[in-house]
Order: sequence, then structure tokens, then C-alpha cells
Amino acid sequence: MKAYKRLVEKYERIHHLSHMQSIVYWDQQAMMPSGSNDARSKAMAEFGVILHEASTDKEIGLLLDDALGEELNDLEKASLKEMKREYTQNTILPSSLVKAQSLAHSKCGHEWVTQRGENDWKGFLPNLEEVVKLAKEEASIRSEVSGLNAYDSLLDLYEPGMRSETLNTIFTDVKTWLPELIQNIIEKQKSESYIKPQGLFDINAQKDLGIKVMKHLGFDFNRGRTDISAHPFCGGVAEDVRITTRYDEKDFIQALMGTVHETGHASYEQGLPQDLLGLPVAQARSMGIHESQSLFFEMQMGRSPEFLKSIQPYISNAFGKDKAFELENLIKIYSRVNTSKIRVDADEVTYASHVILRYEIESALINGEISASDIPDIWNEKMKDALGLDLRGDYKNGCMQDVHWTEGLIGYFPSYTLGAMYAAQQFDSVRKAHTNINDSISNGDLTQVKSWLKENIWNKASIYSTDELIKQATGESLNPKYFKAHLENRYLKN
Amino acid sequence: MKAYKRLVEKYERIHHLSHMQSIVYWDQQAMMPSGSNDARSKAMAEFGVILHEASTDKEIGLLLDDALGEELNDLEKASLKEMKREYTQNTILPSSLVKAQSLAHSKCGHEWVTQRGENDWKGFLPNLEEVVKLAKEEASIRSEVSGLNAYDSLLDLYEPGMRSETLNTIFTDVKTWLPELIQNIIEKQKSESYIKPQGLFDINAQKDLGIKVMKHLGFDFNRGRTDISAHPFCGGVAEDVRITTRYDEKDFIQALMGTVHETGHASYEQGLPQDLLGLPVAQARSMGIHESQSLFFEMQMGRSPEFLKSIQPYISNAFGKDKAFELENLIKIYSRVNTSKIRVDADEVTYASHVILRYEIESALINGEISASDIPDIWNEKMKDALGLDLRGDYKNGCMQDVHWTEGLIGYFPSYTLGAMYAAQQFDSVRKAHTNINDSISNGDLTQVKSWLKENIWNKASIYSTDELIKQATGESLNPKYFKAHLENRYLKN
Repeated sequence: MKAYKRLVEKYERIHHLSHMQSIVYWDQQAMMPSGSNDARSKAMAEFGVILHEASTDKEIGLLLDDALGEELNDLEKASLKEMKREYTQNTILPSSLVKAQSLAHSKCGHEWVTQRGENDWKGFLPNLEEVVKLAKEEASIRSEVSGLNAYDSLLDLYEPGMRSETLNTIFTDVKTWLPELIQNIIEKQKSESYIKPQGLFDINAQKDLGIKVMKHLGFDFNRGRTDISAHPFCGGVAEDVRITTRYDEKDFIQALMGTVHETGHASYEQGLPQDLLGLPVAQARSMGIHESQSLFFEMQMGRSPEFLKSIQPYISNAFGKDKAFELENLIKIYSRVNTSKIRVDADEVTYASHVILRYEIESALINGEISASDIPDIWNEKMKDALGLDLRGDYKNGCMQDVHWTEGLIGYFPSYTLGAMYAAQQFDSVRKAHTNINDSISNGDLTQVKSWLKENIWNKASIYSTDELIKQATGESLNPKYFKAHLENRYLKN
Repeated sequence: MKAYKRLVEKYERIHHLSHMQSIVYWDQQAMMPSGSNDARSKAMAEFGVILHEASTDKEIGLLLDDALGEELNDLEKASLKEMKREYTQNTILPSSLVKAQSLAHSKCGHEWVTQRGENDWKGFLPNLEEVVKLAKEEASIRSEVSGLNAYDSLLDLYEPGMRSETLNTIFTDVKTWLPELIQNIIEKQKSESYIKPQGLFDINAQKDLGIKVMKHLGFDFNRGRTDISAHPFCGGVAEDVRITTRYDEKDFIQALMGTVHETGHASYEQGLPQDLLGLPVAQARSMGIHESQSLFFEMQMGRSPEFLKSIQPYISNAFGKDKAFELENLIKIYSRVNTSKIRVDADEVTYASHVILRYEIESALINGEISASDIPDIWNEKMKDALGLDLRGDYKNGCMQDVHWTEGLIGYFPSYTLGAMYAAQQFDSVRKAHTNINDSISNGDLTQVKSWLKENIWNKASIYSTDELIKQATGESLNPKYFKAHLENRYLKN
């Protein structure tokens, strides 16, 4: 076990160094005054070199080979496998490509901010073409080692073990029922009126409300914080989880549920196995599983009538008595469905349409079936089919709306909808294990929910493959029927 | 200039890495939840190794030698000198001694917290003896290279160029007039009554007041922040200065002037030459000069009737109308003199007595004239002479009150009083340059003060020796007469 032990030391060191990076990144988003950005960027870049050297250390490669011949228990084998996966991911690309990507993403992302505002597809296209070209180069190099097809070799970075074959099956299924479901829900909700909360909602009162709800959800404030940033995220480190929220004085509805969402991510991080922290095997299983925890908190539980009942008094306490804050009205607000051009504004029903469209386009791009210049036409056609929206000429709210591709995050989008589906499947299992779960949640008792998640998801970190994890937790592989049942149940059966 | 240029790159890299450490340290004091301390300590320790390697890099030593032969302008020569000074300081000690010190300081400091609470001198003594023993070893090694006597070789770490010969002359002078001055002031103030502000002062209102006063003082919030920590300090980096304050709901008087003090430190950092940041020559000249800026802000300017007049309306706005907030009363509060056993509670008049006593003891310790076990008796005797206080048996409020020696900070104490003297001498020069300075400050116009400091102190960073800096700024070397005149003027002539 000499090599394995040495690997553990190496990865613990990387973990300690990453801690520095995560906290300083959080600071940059949540605390840093804007005039300090230049010095900060230089510091982060310099430190990035050190972290890169540590995680691509040639000695790790040699030790990984040596450790394969050592006698290890199952956990150590799983740990070694994750080390190997991470190391290969980090070392497989030639530094010339990494550098070219860094430049291309930086240029594309930077210019996109202005170009999007100006609806300037023509200006954006050459930058995007460069990003796609380099992503294809990356995919080709990764494919050679992994034996996967081009797109899958990128998808595997975010969703280890997931393949487009599986995604195609699942998304094809979804497309057979989702458009009709959306229409039925919108039709049903046409006759339902609700009261939009009016007025100014003091930011400090909103913050206090958010903290109360986080405590209600069991966030451990002894190992984490909540603050404000322009783009809400869950950051920090597993031992010190930092979530952020963005408040709007005119509307507390979004910020409140955003806090619940980030608390889901945070609970996963805080629930990871303490004794393994520092090793790749102790990290969250995948982006999709991470998203499943935030969507479990926000969608499965957070927007449910039972959970809303339990937190309704906090809202009244924060902002006084108002018809808009009554439970029935909150339930309506938090389950309203609308077709939107914009993914981040979408509700949980229409969200999958946005993701499937992007998945189909990005996989075709990487697999060489279409080119970047084809995107707007395909986007518009698919948007019309899925949500009945006309996007012609509107790049800003169409194919130029997301930051992902500009930063080379190709293969990431499926994680959102996989997360929604994993969450539905997990909640179904919780319900089967605890038939009184609705009463418990109504009464503010989240013990059953949290114990189930801790035991079945959080504590297992990356010890098992995603498929094995979800099978152990729910008795079967990913099955979109739970997601469908959840949507039908919440939006049509009342 | 090849070697010098390479040195600049090396030190800029160290500057970027130090940025990470400074921000994470600030986070630990001001933001981090307590349950995360263990993970944070490990991260800081791991990063400390990297920073140590960077700043003791053998290549720097070789480059320093090479650069000596290069054709450099005056600024580059000064820069090279500071690089050399810093590098020698960092590399001169064998790592076995550094490690032994680290362990001894950690043990002594950790156990001191409890021992002080229990007035346990006997328990504390062996730990202190170990710290002193190692400090003497350090002094002996540094002396061999510098040619200075033992104590001066430590003093030189905090006050480059300052010697105990000079300190002895200055402090001997102070001791001829300070005890009588203290008695005269206390006698005079016996007949002066003042109103202590009563009541609870909302922490948020205190924070807002602090921010207003910081803005009044010209703190650049685009490159800095203010927050709360248990022990107020000025941290962060020159490009992003982070000060902290500690608030007490029952008393705003201390926190407010504490904020002015830290803003003095911060203004120095924010005023350092932007184009040189990253190089040792761009750092603050010495601990004493740093303290002179905080004491210039707090003592020379902050507690003056003129400055109090300018910020009095902020106080009334924050807490309402009250006799206690009237200008005459504020002036009395902020110039009250008392003898105290505790250094950190001392006013600017009695403070020097605390420092001189410590200087005399620590220099005798390091020069081998006394041993640690002699400290209590000497302490008590000197305290009786200086302030007429009886400390027999009270170690807690006597020789065990400070954290400095437990952490091996021997040679640091003189900086406090040097700072007070430099500040008085600087303010005297400002007054000579601007005869209307009192009116300007009264009217809230700090342009003259800040321009003078920026030009004469901040912008010069470490380009000149401390003596040269103070001569250029004020026309002469450090002269305690300005400090004496300031005290007499403020406390006896009204």
C-alpha cells in the first residue's frame, strides 16, 4: 500500500491548496471591491499554475501504476479509480491546446457580453467557431484514450458513465409526452388566478428570512455561510460551504427559492463523508447528482404544498399579513408554468425542453453533423416544436443566451435535466420508505428526508458509479417515468 | 539588468502568492465559521510551505549577487537593497531553528491563554524561557551576519536601521519628563467632569457611522472593505485593503476611534506607489512608520478638537441629540488620561511608559543581562516608578498581559512609541507647511494633510532608510521633542 498511501498524501495536499483557491474565488464573487480585480486576477492566475503543477505531477502517474498492483480494499480501489479518472482528465490534453482554449474562451466570453446585448450573431460566430473547433480537438484526444465517441468523451467529464445512447433514449421518451403536458398545464392554469406580492421587501428582512429557511433545512452554519453575489452559487469547500443569493427589493419569491436551491447543493457538500475529504472519491458524484440535490430541495420538496406550509409563517413574520402570503396563493405562485425563451427563467416543466434542444445541438456540433453557423436555424425550429415560440432574428434571447458554450462548457447541459430526473426518482423512493413523508414535511420535520439523502447520496460521494449509486438508492437505473409522474401529479392532479 | 529583471519577476510572483495568503487570513479572522478552522489551518500550513519555498528560492540568492554588478538607477538600487534585506531575513535561520521556534511559540501562545486567566506565572515561565532561549539563538545567528549586538539584530527586523543606542537616548530623555507630565495631567483633569454616553448603540448604526468617517478620511472603498473581527486589524493587500473593527453595543467611543486608527494604517497601504507594488521596495518602511500613520490619524488628528468638530454631526445623526455627544464633551472623552496596568487600555500619554518598560526588559533578556525568571520583580519595580502602580502578585495584568513575547515577537514593542513620535514630528511639519491646517481640519477638508502624507510618507514606501525618510519629510532625524510638545499642548494648555 506504499504507493496508494503516497497518493493519499498527494491528493490531500491538492485538497488543501484547492481550499485556498475556492475561498479566494468566493471572496472575488461575494466580497472583493471591484477596483481590486486586476491584482486578484493575477494572484489567481499565479496560483492556478501551482495547482495545475500539483494535479498533473508526473509522480502521481507513476504511483497510480504502482498502486494497481497493491492489495487494496474496496473503498481504496474505488478511491484509486477516482484518482486515476481525475489525473487522466487533467493530464491528457497537451498544454498548447489548454492554452489555446483558455485564450479562445476568454475572448469569446468577454466579447459575448457586449455582442449578446447587441444581438450580434455575426460578430459572435467566429469566436464560437474557434471554441467549437478546439472542443472538437479536445474530444478527439479524449476519445482516443477513452474509446468513447467524440461527444461522449466530453459528456463524461461532467457525467462519468453517462452516454448519449442513454440520453437519446431518455430524451426521445420525454419528447413524446412533454410538449402536450406543457400545453395541458398552461391550459389548466389559464383559469387559475393568483396574487403577485406587491411592494418593497427590505433586503435585510429577506436575508433573515433566507437564514431561517436555511436553518429549517438543516444547513450547518458552523461550517458555512450565506452572502450576496451577482450570480448565486454554492462555493467554498466541503468543510466551509459558502452559498450566495441575489436579492431584489421588489420580489422575494425568486431569491427565497434560490436560497433553497443552493442549500440543496450545500447540504450535499456538507454531507460528504468527513473521513475521506481530500480524496477524489469523497467528491460529489457528478454534476447531475449535484443538481439532483438542489432540485430535490427546490423542486421536489421546496415548491411542494407541504414544504410551503411549513415555511409560510416565516414569510408572514418577515413581511406582515397579506393575502399574497397565504398558503394557497404561495402554492400557486411557486407552481406557475409559462413558456419562456430564456432557460434560466424556465419552470421545472418547460426546463427540460431547453436542455434537450441544447443537447441535440451541441452533440451534433461535436460529432461533426452540423456547424456553428447552422445553430440559429436549428435553434428556432426546435424552439417552435418544443415550446411554440418564434425566435427568428432574436439571437439575444435565443442561441446567444447562455454563457456555457462561450466558456467551452460543451457536454454540461444534460446535467440539469438529469438532475431533475434523479431528484424525482429519489423523492419517489423517500416516499416509498416513509409513507407519512407529506405529514412530516408539513410539520417541519425533515429528518426522514435528510437521513435518506445522507445515507443514500451524500455519504456515498463518488464511491460508486452514478448508475450503481442510483440503483442502490432507488432500486433501478435512471428512469424518466418518475419525473413524468411528478410533473403530472403536481401540475394536473389538483 | 538581466538579473535584476529576473528578480523583479520573482518578487512579483511572491507578491501574487502572498495575495492569496492575505485574503484567506482575512477571511479566517472576519468571515470563516469556527467549525472550519481545522481545514483552514491545514490549507494555510500547506500554502505556507509554498510561499516559504518561493521566498527562500536559492536562485534569488544567485541573482542578487549577479545584480550587484549591473548598471541600475537609484530606484533600482534601492529596490535591490530591499530584496537583499528581505531575502537575508528569510534565509539566514537554519530550518531546524525555525521549526523549533514554530513549536515553542505555538505551545507558549496556546497555553498562555489559560495560564494568563489563572494568573499562573509558574506554569508560564518554562514556556517563556524556551521562547527566549530560541530568540537568543536567532539573535546570535543574525548578529554574526549583521555585526549588530544581539537585541539590535532582532529590533532591525521591525525597525530597519534603528539601534538600541538611539532608543536609549530617546527613552532616557522621555523618562526625565513623562512621569511628571502624567501626574500634572491627571491632577488637572481631576477637576474636569464629562458625561459618559449611556445606552445601547445599534451595531448597524455604529457600522454606518464608521463607514461615514472612513469616507471622510478618504478611504478608497473601491480598493478595500471594512468588516468585524474579534481583534481589529488592517489586512488584505495594498490593492485591496481590509480593515476590521470590533463593536460594543454599550460603547461606540472606542470602536469609532479604532476605525480611525485602522484607516490610518489602510491609507498608508492604499497610498503606496502603485507602479512598484509587488517589489519589497514598495512595502511600508517599518512597523514604526506604519504605526505612525495609524497614530497620526487617531492621535494627532483624530482626537484633536478640530477633527472631532468635523465628525460630530455624524455622531449626532447616528444616535440622536444628547449632551454626551456635544463637541466639548467628546473632546473631554477623547483626551482623558488615566494610569492603567494594561497597555492596550492606555491613552497616548501613558502608553510610552508601557513600551519603555517592555523595551528595557526585552533588551536585557536578549543581551543576557537578566533571565526570564527575573521579569516579574523588574516589571513591578518599573511599573511603580513609571505609573505608580503596584503589580505585586498580579501577573495577569502585569508581565503576562501581552501576546507578543509568547509568539517570539521580541524587538517589536519600541515600534509603538516610535510610531507615536514619528507621528508628532510629521504633524508638526504639516502644521509648518500649512498654517491654516486647524481650520481646514475643522471644516472637514483633509486635502492638505493627505497630500503631505502621500507625498512625504506613503509614496516613498521603502525607497529610503527610515532616518532618511523622516529627514526628507521633516527636516531632521527623529526628535522626541515634538512628541513632548504635542502632549503638553493637548493636555495642559487649555
